[in-house]
Amino acid sequence: MSIITLCTDFGTQDGYVASMKGVILGINPSANVTDATHDIPPHDVLFAAFVLNGYYRSFPKGTVHVAVVDPGVGGRRLGMVVKTKEYVFVGPDNGVFSNVLMDNPAQCYAIGLPGNISRTFHGRDVFAPVAARMSVRWDRSVIGGRIKDPVMLDVRKPVVRAGDVIGEVIHVDRFGNLISNIPSGLLKSGKNVHIVIKGYSINGMAPTYEQCTGKRPCALIDSFGLLEIAVNSGSACRKLGARAGDAVHVSWK
Amino acid sequence: MSIITLCTDFGTQDGYVASMKGVILGINPSANVTDATHDIPPHDVLFAAFVLNGYYRSFPKGTVHVAVVDPGVGGRRLGMVVKTKEYVFVGPDNGVFSNVLMDNPAQCYAIGLPGNISRTFHGRDVFAPVAARMSVRWDRSVIGGRIKDPVMLDVRKPVVRAGDVIGEVIHVDRFGNLISNIPSGLLKSGKNVHIVIKGYSINGMAPTYEQCTGKRPCALIDSFGLLEIAVNSGSACRKLGARAGDAVHVSWK
Amino acid sequence: MSIITLCTDFGTQDGYVASMKGVILGINPSANVTDATHDIPPHDVLFAAFVLNGYYRSFPKGTVHVAVVDPGVGGRRLGMVVKTKEYVFVGPDNGVFSNVLMDNPAQCYAIGLPGNISRTFHGRDVFAPVAARMSVRWDRSVIGGRIKDPVMLDVRKPVVRAGDVIGEVIHVDRFGNLISNIPSGLLKSGKNVHIVIKGYSINGMAPTYEQCTGKRPCALIDSFGLLEIAVNSGSACRKLGARAGDAVHVSWK
Repeated sequence: MSIITLCTDFGTQDGYVASMKGVILGINPSANVTDATHDIPPHDVLFAAFVLNGYYRSFPKGTVHVAVVDPGVGGRRLGMVVKTKEYVFVGPDNGVFSNVLMDNPAQCYAIGLPGNISRTFHGRDVFAPVAARMSVRWDRSVIGGRIKDPVMLDVRKPVVRAGDVIGEVIHVDRFGNLISNIPSGLLKSGKNVHIVIKGYSINGMAPTYEQCTGKRPCALIDSFGLLEIAVNSGSACRKLGARAGDAVHVSWK
Repeated sequence: MSIITLCTDFGTQDGYVASMKGVILGINPSANVTDATHDIPPHDVLFAAFVLNGYYRSFPKGTVHVAVVDPGVGGRRLGMVVKTKEYVFVGPDNGVFSNVLMDNPAQCYAIGLPGNISRTFHGRDVFAPVAARMSVRWDRSVIGGRIKDPVMLDVRKPVVRAGDVIGEVIHVDRFGNLISNIPSGLLKSGKNVHIVIKGYSINGMAPTYEQCTGKRPCALIDSFGLLEIAVNSGSACRKLGARAGDAVHVSWK
Repeated sequence: MSIITLCTDFGTQDGYVASMKGVILGINPSANVTDATHDIPPHDVLFAAFVLNGYYRSFPKGTVHVAVVDPGVGGRRLGMVVKTKEYVFVGPDNGVFSNVLMDNPAQCYAIGLPGNISRTFHGRDVFAPVAARMSVRWDRSVIGGRIKDPVMLDVRKPVVRAGDVIGEVIHVDRFGNLISNIPSGLLKSGKNVHIVIKGYSINGMAPTYEQCTGKRPCALIDSFGLLEIAVNSGSACRKLGARAGDAVHVSWK
């Protein structure tokens, strides 16, 4: 267990991330500290939960995943260590691990606070040292009692009815692709699918970006296995004026 | 062979880069995965080719350089492995390795696609695993047949005439420096050089940024060995309203 | 000694950072090259000095910290290696190590320039190779004579009077938090503290961000041990229209 990934909303300008790396390497000099992202929009726990969900399974067994998007730092929210069959997760108990907990049997543990820590930077003072120690070996003495009822975000699921599915955009990526919460399994194959978003109609699925022609928005299954609206070499976000939360309606003819 | 560099247009917000890192470390846990850049403007293959050209030679022999700027992902373009005397390059066959191929004897190989991959994220599903396996050892079984005629971008060369040279701006860096496609070898030394860009005249070369005085644009040889227009502690890009593609005219008196 | 941190104003788009990493790994293949930040505003040496000061102590003894924010590159300013009891610092002698030198007994050495280097990119051609060699072992032959009088920035200290303290904002972080130059030691505990910034009055200190209620600016001690003005889940910078250099006035009743 020596890979530690970092997901934060600290940005890369202020040196907060560097402080975390230094603390980790001081405790486990052979840790492979891997930047996942530090560009989560400030305080956007839901965004972080989605991004983490997209990459954590790509890492080898034993990886320690740290996520610090923590508007309640220093307050009543607990620090938490989550143990699944394959990974250890370290961060605040504020919902950032909601997807992990929905998809995996897991044990959650509270992190006790050491005596003399800052009230504003648990990334450096709490989560980095705990992650570093856990990357050496699973160490029960680092953590406290079980958390039976960890905070879960209201991760919106699509509404599935007899003849249609109503989902929503949950993420807009760098390319302006609109990623919905509708998994590919809900798209019955062999039927003519019809998708409406922001009043715009799309008939049928495109197998790849390249087959979306004419700068028109098209629908495809993305690398997360989710329905995505994209414009080939363009931005569906800009084209449709769409954003996270907008409804995506799927029906069949 | 255990260094793997990553150059993408994925940005660092979405977790796509993290997925690639996880896949690589799952195959080669001792790989040193090094971020080159993830901030290539989306789909700008020419920009990526220029940036890659600026850094790949700085790495030690045996480094595997991955470049994923891939607007045609999932379409007809092939995946490619390029082998030069010193390095292995992995990415799409879309011209991103044009400079590498112009400057080095090289063999190009097609990458066969594994069975069950996403159509939208070959960075994670194709290029990362191939690069990881190649970082362990050169493995002919990972790749397919030779590509005899890889895609080459139209990398513009300056026009050299009896009394002058006509080049163009090929890159604007973070500091607003305007980097041209005119190599230092074309600037005859010992003569009074005269440079015109966007109607602005510059006489003579400055040896360093510091010797560009008075916030005036000046010309120097940059770290790539190319003619560059710069403003000391300022932005030549803003000062001149110049951008990539603008003509740079050099003459002698 | 095998950790090397990098702090630059190069951004991550141009490949300059990648070139430095390649040079380092060519000299010391087992170096752990750690990105601290590359997003220092261009040429802002004072900003870099502050950021470096925030993280360097978090790293284990023996770490080599490189800082390249270098508007005078190629000019008369010297390259410098700073040796403290715990760390080695490498960069230009332009004040970027001012805080390090104020807080630590240190020896400063000039870096002699190798013969054939670019005049514009000492990050790659001077500081990276020196840092790489110093990360293998302290090597006196890499460096030149002592620098007795290194450049020091005018790091502004707060004015302390009988009944009040006048400081200023020295850094605005990604969250819009306003970090002042007033250390916690100057805030007499047990008295009612009163803070004024941009005409806005704050009474008392908040122990944590979470206890700043109602989107009102509040004052707390940040993770650097400095007085900070923050808005819980908001931006004090935007709320107050404040920026670096603005006065922060502290008094007691």
